[in-house]
Amino acid sequence: MTQSILTRQAAPADRLPDSQPLYRQLADQYRRAIGSGVLRPGDRMPSMRAFMQRHGVSLATATESYRVLERDALIDARPRAGYFVRVPPTAALPAASEPDLATLPGAAQFVGIHSVISSIVSTFQRYPDALNLGGATASPDLYPTDALQKAALRALRKRPTLLTAAGHDQGDPALRAIIARRALDAGIQIGADDIIMTHGGIEAVNLALRAVTQPGDTVAVESPCFFGLLQALESLGLRALEIPASPTTGLAIEALAFALHTHPDIKAVVVVPNLQNPLGSVMPDTHKARLVELCAQAGIPLIEDDPYRELADAAQPPRSLKAWDTDGTVIHCTSFNKVLAPGMRVGWINGGRWHPRIGMLKFAQSRHNEQLSQVVLAEFLETNAYERHLRRLRDRLRLQRERMAAAIATSFPDGTRFTPPRGGMFFWIELPRDMSSTVFFKAVLDEGIRVMPGTMFSNGGRFDHFIRLSSPSTDLDLADEAVRRLGRLAARMAAHPD
Amino acid sequence: MTQSILTRQAAPADRLPDSQPLYRQLADQYRRAIGSGVLRPGDRMPSMRAFMQRHGVSLATATESYRVLERDALIDARPRAGYFVRVPPTAALPAASEPDLATLPGAAQFVGIHSVISSIVSTFQRYPDALNLGGATASPDLYPTDALQKAALRALRKRPTLLTAAGHDQGDPALRAIIARRALDAGIQIGADDIIMTHGGIEAVNLALRAVTQPGDTVAVESPCFFGLLQALESLGLRALEIPASPTTGLAIEALAFALHTHPDIKAVVVVPNLQNPLGSVMPDTHKARLVELCAQAGIPLIEDDPYRELADAAQPPRSLKAWDTDGTVIHCTSFNKVLAPGMRVGWINGGRWHPRIGMLKFAQSRHNEQLSQVVLAEFLETNAYERHLRRLRDRLRLQRERMAAAIATSFPDGTRFTPPRGGMFFWIELPRDMSSTVFFKAVLDEGIRVMPGTMFSNGGRFDHFIRLSSPSTDLDLADEAVRRLGRLAARMAAHPD
Repeated sequence: MTQSILTRQAAPADRLPDSQPLYRQLADQYRRAIGSGVLRPGDRMPSMRAFMQRHGVSLATATESYRVLERDALIDARPRAGYFVRVPPTAALPAASEPDLATLPGAAQFVGIHSVISSIVSTFQRYPDALNLGGATASPDLYPTDALQKAALRALRKRPTLLTAAGHDQGDPALRAIIARRALDAGIQIGADDIIMTHGGIEAVNLALRAVTQPGDTVAVESPCFFGLLQALESLGLRALEIPASPTTGLAIEALAFALHTHPDIKAVVVVPNLQNPLGSVMPDTHKARLVELCAQAGIPLIEDDPYRELADAAQPPRSLKAWDTDGTVIHCTSFNKVLAPGMRVGWINGGRWHPRIGMLKFAQSRHNEQLSQVVLAEFLETNAYERHLRRLRDRLRLQRERMAAAIATSFPDGTRFTPPRGGMFFWIELPRDMSSTVFFKAVLDEGIRVMPGTMFSNGGRFDHFIRLSSPSTDLDLADEAVRRLGRLAARMAAHPD
Repeated sequence: MTQSILTRQAAPADRLPDSQPLYRQLADQYRRAIGSGVLRPGDRMPSMRAFMQRHGVSLATATESYRVLERDALIDARPRAGYFVRVPPTAALPAASEPDLATLPGAAQFVGIHSVISSIVSTFQRYPDALNLGGATASPDLYPTDALQKAALRALRKRPTLLTAAGHDQGDPALRAIIARRALDAGIQIGADDIIMTHGGIEAVNLALRAVTQPGDTVAVESPCFFGLLQALESLGLRALEIPASPTTGLAIEALAFALHTHPDIKAVVVVPNLQNPLGSVMPDTHKARLVELCAQAGIPLIEDDPYRELADAAQPPRSLKAWDTDGTVIHCTSFNKVLAPGMRVGWINGGRWHPRIGMLKFAQSRHNEQLSQVVLAEFLETNAYERHLRRLRDRLRLQRERMAAAIATSFPDGTRFTPPRGGMFFWIELPRDMSSTVFFKAVLDEGIRVMPGTMFSNGGRFDHFIRLSSPSTDLDLADEAVRRLGRLAARMAAHPD
């Protein structure tokens, strides 16, 4: 159907009403055709004259459409040959090292990450204008600002007491019903009552930890590990046992199996199965099945933190660990923060066997979530706008990642390694062995760029020669240029350590 | 000025534009005159004819205005004499017992309140249609639904990315600046940076407790104590030491001083100084000063939970404990939940000496609050609508309490005692000694009325012959009738225990 729009002579009256200018509508048609594979890398684009005739538009409109597509790195101009659908550069760098399973951490450690992170954050704060290549959300213009604003206006007009009437303890029932329906996509079969809305995914993970541990207990986590989880563990007085994770398949299941034998004091396992932060790995289904089985057999709660699932590059997003859960071993935590709206703090939890206790803890800790954002979300999820948004977001993130991979591959020094992530926005980059990311992140701040040093992602300092990069904005040229500057700086530092 | 509106001949053109119907605008003028004391109890209201002439309105409008005032118990019709400003009935019951300071609880107890509350809540859930005289907020129509809805619409139009852009870690800076200015009213001198926004007041109290205690520690609380605090203590693994509180002056400071000597393991004190829940007491300034000094000298953090302050009956609302704090001993927690909008989960905390640690815990636990409700609140607080709302809310609550006090005094059995609260919405009623509120609350549920049994307010079962009542709605006749039914039932049960 996209093809017919592109090939037949479209009269202006055929076009759908759209608030976008015409050149942008046309660029979007081609963007979709490229995204869906109707137009393939290397395909020749119509000539300007053919484009003008086909769509009945002026030269100015045609030029502007091509300019947008070129800016977004969807097409390339080849001198005297015309425009072609862009061939994504292949990353020329070797894949990141697989973890060395022979050097498991000896003992679970009380996390001391907060002081490390505080020091990094206060360094960041001295450079408020730095270009942020360290964030964990996409840029605001990749989220459906208009549609959510309209949903909020509708919700407020329809239900004027949203702000003044208290909500349901577990969260808005209509929203929970929609979420339960959508969870089938992740392979999760639950009802609305099996869901408790939380203040973002991080509250969900905190509640899960509080439900199944006591201060002093040991919790097995992935290594490298999302620093927010290390902070949560520290604030709850828990010890972290870091289990190696592979940049392609995530947590090393057999290393966990071994640790469960050698550390009988492990009281919970926390895993990000889909698009692990910072690795960008997606755990294969066989690993997911084995991990759930392992925890069930050991009688140890498996806390699944799954906020990135829908950002994975695939026709069908991967399933959650919870899909393999048969006896309530898995506590599933997620949120709409990364995929839909960083300004909304709407997460949810299914507590498995510990659901009632988690409900009690949530009530005692912060009562119900606000009504308004929940109703806005329900309004939005009821339409097909959410699916449309996700498709667009995934396409844009893929494009950003391809550009970024190319820039990294061509500008970082020999000895740099990375495994292309399976979706999302993170690049976990292994710098040459003798480079320190602690030195590097400060040096690049002086150049006006913020990156996350690897030291934030472990309590053991094992990732000091890693950095986490993420795409900052839809201004791909700006990101490109920033990454190239990072690469040049890394090359200088690698050539002259200290 | 109010008087001039009432006495001069007002031409319709003089009236301010108002979306309210005319009869209601006029009723509101008289309501304000009565609330402000321009018209005093017993004053004669104008005759219908005089009212029609004075305001240039029809008989229908005049009649309707008087009907509204009569319904709201602001005026009474005396047969053949006309209408008079109502004389509030004096409560005829003896004051509630002062606490017996000789029988201090012997040892701090691990709170086991959750199972008690769960059982009560699940009993409540079997009677979903019961008239709720057990709530902790005023009825929705006492909150400024329209104004908040409009503020939300304005905020969304002005800042369309409110839902999609992440907010500031500590909360919206503009809102915090306004709150800091307003805090001067409570005697609190802080800057915007000294404020962290939280998900309601209960998250603030939880964060305060987490910042200054370890599981197993003892926390001194008032007795009777808000059950939500007992639940929070239980969920954090803390022991509660219940210190007696007086229905007129709140926490017995000398009992606390004694307990600090005998229980060196007390790690924090939690107090609701203004309109204690459930007592409705307001701590005198001298007590506040002494309490802060006592805790400062003992080096023990004093957690102030102050969500009801602005509902106190007084020309000038009472000050917070924090006003007497000179060295950061007091952690001040409050929210807008009870006074402005039960649907919004917007609280804030000043952590005194522990402010940075509380900031870390808040970040690790739930990140920043949502932007939207904060910006709505800032919009609303910037106008004088908040002060207007508070005056109206206090007037209406006072009226409700007067009606309720009269109904209790005339219908509850001998041996019932209560001390009129100093504002807010709670009545803490001491039933005759041999009555059990556990039996009573179930019996009245069968009659379709929900009240809170005293057992929820202590871990020691010391308030089994108490109940907490609150005004359910602006339908004062309905509340009246419900209270009278409660009284009759109590009288029957007192006459025939078991």
